[in-house]
Amino acid sequence: MNLMADPQSDTEGRLRHLLTLNGLGRERIVALLDRGAALRDAYRGGTLPPLLAGRTVMNLFFEASTRTRTSFELAAHRLGAFVVNFDIANSSTSKGESLEDTLATLEAMDADAFIVRHKENGTPARFAAHARRAVIVNAGDGNHAHPTQGLLDLLTIRDHKGDVEGLNVTICGDVRHSRVARSDIHGLSALGANEIRLCGPAALLPSATEFPECRIVGSFDEALDGSDVIIMLRLQKERIEGVLGLGEAEYFAAYGLTGERLARAREDAIVMHPGPMNRGVEIADDVADGPRSVILDQVANGIFVRMAVLAELLRV
Amino acid sequence: MNLMADPQSDTEGRLRHLLTLNGLGRERIVALLDRGAALRDAYRGGTLPPLLAGRTVMNLFFEASTRTRTSFELAAHRLGAFVVNFDIANSSTSKGESLEDTLATLEAMDADAFIVRHKENGTPARFAAHARRAVIVNAGDGNHAHPTQGLLDLLTIRDHKGDVEGLNVTICGDVRHSRVARSDIHGLSALGANEIRLCGPAALLPSATEFPECRIVGSFDEALDGSDVIIMLRLQKERIEGVLGLGEAEYFAAYGLTGERLARAREDAIVMHPGPMNRGVEIADDVADGPRSVILDQVANGIFVRMAVLAELLRV
Amino acid sequence: MNLMADPQSDTEGRLRHLLTLNGLGRERIVALLDRGAALRDAYRGGTLPPLLAGRTVMNLFFEASTRTRTSFELAAHRLGAFVVNFDIANSSTSKGESLEDTLATLEAMDADAFIVRHKENGTPARFAAHARRAVIVNAGDGNHAHPTQGLLDLLTIRDHKGDVEGLNVTICGDVRHSRVARSDIHGLSALGANEIRLCGPAALLPSATEFPECRIVGSFDEALDGSDVIIMLRLQKERIEGVLGLGEAEYFAAYGLTGERLARAREDAIVMHPGPMNRGVEIADDVADGPRSVILDQVANGIFVRMAVLAELLRV
Repeated sequence: MNLMADPQSDTEGRLRHLLTLNGLGRERIVALLDRGAALRDAYRGGTLPPLLAGRTVMNLFFEASTRTRTSFELAAHRLGAFVVNFDIANSSTSKGESLEDTLATLEAMDADAFIVRHKENGTPARFAAHARRAVIVNAGDGNHAHPTQGLLDLLTIRDHKGDVEGLNVTICGDVRHSRVARSDIHGLSALGANEIRLCGPAALLPSATEFPECRIVGSFDEALDGSDVIIMLRLQKERIEGVLGLGEAEYFAAYGLTGERLARAREDAIVMHPGPMNRGVEIADDVADGPRSVILDQVANGIFVRMAVLAELLRV
Repeated sequence: MNLMADPQSDTEGRLRHLLTLNGLGRERIVALLDRGAALRDAYRGGTLPPLLAGRTVMNLFFEASTRTRTSFELAAHRLGAFVVNFDIANSSTSKGESLEDTLATLEAMDADAFIVRHKENGTPARFAAHARRAVIVNAGDGNHAHPTQGLLDLLTIRDHKGDVEGLNVTICGDVRHSRVARSDIHGLSALGANEIRLCGPAALLPSATEFPECRIVGSFDEALDGSDVIIMLRLQKERIEGVLGLGEAEYFAAYGLTGERLARAREDAIVMHPGPMNRGVEIADDVADGPRSVILDQVANGIFVRMAVLAELLRV
Repeated sequence: MNLMADPQSDTEGRLRHLLTLNGLGRERIVALLDRGAALRDAYRGGTLPPLLAGRTVMNLFFEASTRTRTSFELAAHRLGAFVVNFDIANSSTSKGESLEDTLATLEAMDADAFIVRHKENGTPARFAAHARRAVIVNAGDGNHAHPTQGLLDLLTIRDHKGDVEGLNVTICGDVRHSRVARSDIHGLSALGANEIRLCGPAALLPSATEFPECRIVGSFDEALDGSDVIIMLRLQKERIEGVLGLGEAEYFAAYGLTGERLARAREDAIVMHPGPMNRGVEIADDVADGPRSVILDQVANGIFVRMAVLAELLRV
C-alpha cells in the first residue's frame, strides 16, 4: 500500500483520520475492535480513564442524525472530552462560508477532532485534506462509507461468533444507497468472511462490478440458507413506491425478515439492523425483538468503537 | 394501594418513575419536598455532593419548553450528571421510528434517566411501561400531569406558609387544559389543603365530576375571599378570542389578578404563576412584581425539586 | 466620568457588564487585553485554572451565530463554567414573554452570566438594566457594538505590532451596518491609533458626523497607502445588488483586497477579517490565505479575550 496516497494515514503509516474501512487492512481493524472491547470492559468495570480530558470534539452533522450524534457525544464525553454540537443550520456555512474556512476557523479554536456527517460522498475526505492538526472521523457520507457503523457491526459479530473468519453474511435491502452496507462489506472482507451475500430488489442492488468479492443473490430465501449473520438495511419508505412500484406489504413479503424465513438460516444466526427500523417493512416484530436479534448490542457497541477510534486517532 | 397496578412504583413499592402526583401519597410527596429543601441548603452552602456523577440524563422534549428543559438540565448537571438534549425534531422518531424503539436505543447507550415532555397524555407512562432499567420523569404530558411543577409549587407554598394543611388555595384561569392545575390539585389534596377553589370561564373549567374535592367558584372575587394562596394559570391567548369570544381586556377585567382584587385575599396571601406570564391578561404588573408574588421562588425551587426527584429515582 | 450614568460600571466604578468599548477607557481595555494574553499563556502552558468552576453561563443568541456562540462556549467551558445554550427559537420569549421576564426567570435559576446577541441595538443594555446579580456580555447588537470582537482585534494587532499607538488602520466595506467596525473604532481610538481610515461605497459609509475621529477616504487605494492594519468587513451579498446596484465583480474591483492592492500598504501590514469571509467579494484568496493574513489569529484570540471578560466581570 502506498502510504503517501492514503488520505487516512500520516507519513509514518499511522491512522490519522477515519474516513472508510476500505483499504484499512485487517490489522488496524482488529486493533480498533480490540481497543473497543477493552474500553467496554473498563467502562463496565468502572475504571474507564479520562483519556480525552482537556480535548474538544466537535460534531459537524450537515445531515441530521440524532442517534449517531448522541453516540459520538457520549463516547467522547465518557472519555473526558468536551463536546460541541455545532449547529450547522445556523452556521456560517449556511451563510456561504466554504467548508474549508469553517474547518480552519473551528481548528483555530483548538478543536481536536471533528465528527462529520454529510449527504455528499467525500466531504469528510475533503475536511481531512485541509485539516492542519485536527483529526476527522467520518460519521456517514452519502452512500460512500460509515466506518464506525462497520466497526460496531464487526465487534457485535465477533462478540457473538468469536470470529468473523469463515462466516456467511447476508446483507439485505437497499444495498445500492447504503453506506452501512459498504462499510460492512469492506470490514467483513478484511476480516475474512467466507461469503458475503447481497440481496434485494434489482433496482436497489449495486452494480455487478462494484463488489466482486460478494455474491448477489436474487431470492432472499436462498440467501438465508446457511447464513451465520443477517444484516437488514433500513429502506427509505418512499423508494418502495417510487423506485420499486410496490406496496409495503409486497416489499415485506419479498424481502422482510420473518420468523419463518429466519428458520432457513443457521440455528445460531444473529440478526442485525443499523436502525432506525421500519418494522413490518424490513423486519417482523418477533424477529426484531426475538432471541436472535443483536440490534441493541450494536447500539451499545457503537459507543465503544467510537471511543476506540477517538482514542486511537488522538494518540492517547 | 395495589402496588402491582401502580406504574410509578417497583415491586417493593419504591418510587421507580415520576409520572403524576395523583395517588403518590402524602408520605412520598413530603419526602421529595424535604429532600428538595435539603439539597437547596447544601447547594446554597456550597456542599452539594455530586450524587449523579457518571450518570447520563436525557431530555426528550417532544414539545418545546426551554424553561423546563433548562431547569432539568441545571438540576442534573449540578448533581454531576451528564445531560444530553436529544434533538427530537431531527431524530429517528421523526423518521417514523416508534417511541419504544427510540427508548430502547437510547437505553442501550446507557442513559439512566429520561425527562419526557409530550403533547399527548400518557406518553411518559408509555415510556415507563417499556423502560428496562432507566427511570422516566414526566416533564408535562398534554393536560394530564406536570408533577415536578406540582412539587415546586408545594415547596414554595411550604416555604412561605410553613405547611399546606388547612390552607385555602384558589387556582384561576384555564384549568381545563392545564396539567399544572391537575398536578397542583393532586399535591394540595394529598397534603391536606382546606379548600381548593377552581375559578375561570365556564368553557375553561373542568367537568364538575373530575375534581369532587375542589369547589368551583364562578366569581373570581368570591374565590379570592380568604384565600391563602392564589395560583394564576397561563392562558393561551388564542383561546380568549377563539373559545371565549372575548377581548384580552374583557378577560383581564373578569379573571385578571389586580392589586385591588388581591386585597380580597388574606393579608399574607401569596401569588403564584407557572410562567411564562401574559402580563395584562392573567396578572397585573404590580401584582406580578409585588411583595406577595413568589413567582421567582417557584423558578428557583424548580431546580431543587428536580434534583430531589432525580436523586430519589436513581437511588442515590 | 459620571459613574452613575455608566451602565457598564457598578457604583464603585468596576466593570459590571460589557456592552460596548465606547467610553470604556484605555486603562480598562488594556487590562482586559493583558488578562487575555495571560490566560492564553496559561492555556497553552497547560496551567489554566478553573476560575469559573461552579458558575453557569447562558448563551442567549436571538440572532444566529454559531461561530461567536462556540467561541464563548469554549471560553467559558475551558475556565470550568457550565454553559447552557438557551434555545431562543423554542423559548418563552417566542411565546410572548417579555425579555425582562425571561431574564428574571433565568437569573432565578442561578445563571451567573448571560451572553446576549440580538438584532436590535440596545437589547444587551436593556438586559443589563434589569439584571439583579448576573453580568451581561454583549455578543453583538444590531449595528451598535460587538465589544469582544473589538477586543480580539486589538489583541491581535498588539500581538503583531507591539502597540496600537501610532498605527494607521484602514477599515473597508460596509461600515454603516457594522457593529464590528464601531467596536474597532472605539477600541483603536482609546488605544491611540494615529489614523483610522474608513473606506467603502458612499451608501455603506456612516454619516460624516458619527466618527469625527476617523478619516473617510473614497478611494481604497488611497486609504491603503501607508496602512499598518487593514480590517476588511463582511458584506451582506444582497446589499451589493440591492443597495449598490453593482455586480459582485464590480464591487470586488472597487473594494476587494487583492495582492496588488495590498502592496500599497506598509510592507509589514496585517490583514484582518471578522469572518465569515466572502472570498472574491471582499478579499482575494491569495490575501486571505497569504502571509499578511492574521485572520485565524483573530479567531484564536477571540476565546482568550472572552475568557478575560468573563473572569473580570465575575470577579475571579
